[in-house]
Amino acid sequence: MYAVIFRAKVAELDEEYFRIAERMKDLAFEKYGCLDFISVAEGDEEIAISYWETKQHIRDWKNDPEHRLAQSKGRDKWYKSFSVEICEIIRK
Amino acid sequence: MYAVIFRAKVAELDEEYFRIAERMKDLAFEKYGCLDFISVAEGDEEIAISYWETKQHIRDWKNDPEHRLAQSKGRDKWYKSFSVEICEIIRK
Repeated sequence: MYAVIFRAKVAELDEEYFRIAERMKDLAFEKYGCLDFISVAEGDEEIAISYWETKQHIRDWKNDPEHRLAQSKGRDKWYKSFSVEICEIIRK
Repeated sequence: MYAVIFRAKVAELDEEYFRIAERMKDLAFEKYGCLDFISVAEGDEEIAISYWETKQHIRDWKNDPEHRLAQSKGRDKWYKSFSVEICEIIRK
């Protein structure tokens, strides 16, 4: 199993952010086989972790057109900075 | 590089928790070569991610006597439940 760790410094989250975040979560689960998702925010720090069966699932999800638009808005508007780490889970 | 993802449902965090959490962080960096650490809490959800050079570093840290005591207090007192996932970072 694979995990994608998203770490971000939040700039400003508006109403559109919460709508799109919800939509992205639904899309990841329903269309791309996301196995689990957790997101926790405190002050200007956000961590979100999604879980996937294969690297191909992660690539497909990354390239989804709606998701790409959301990524671009994240970069331009909602986040000061963010990083993404793709991990293979070797022990639970 | 390896990441350890700690996910928890918080029961109740007391003064001792914050003191020991700070001590554990110092110990992980100073004695066990922890490379990075981030912890974010929201409501009763907590995610903490630590980063390590090798699996051996993670094993050594897990077995540290002070850390084992902290783990036991975590189980008994501070957390309703928690999980730990050991991951290899394959792409940043």
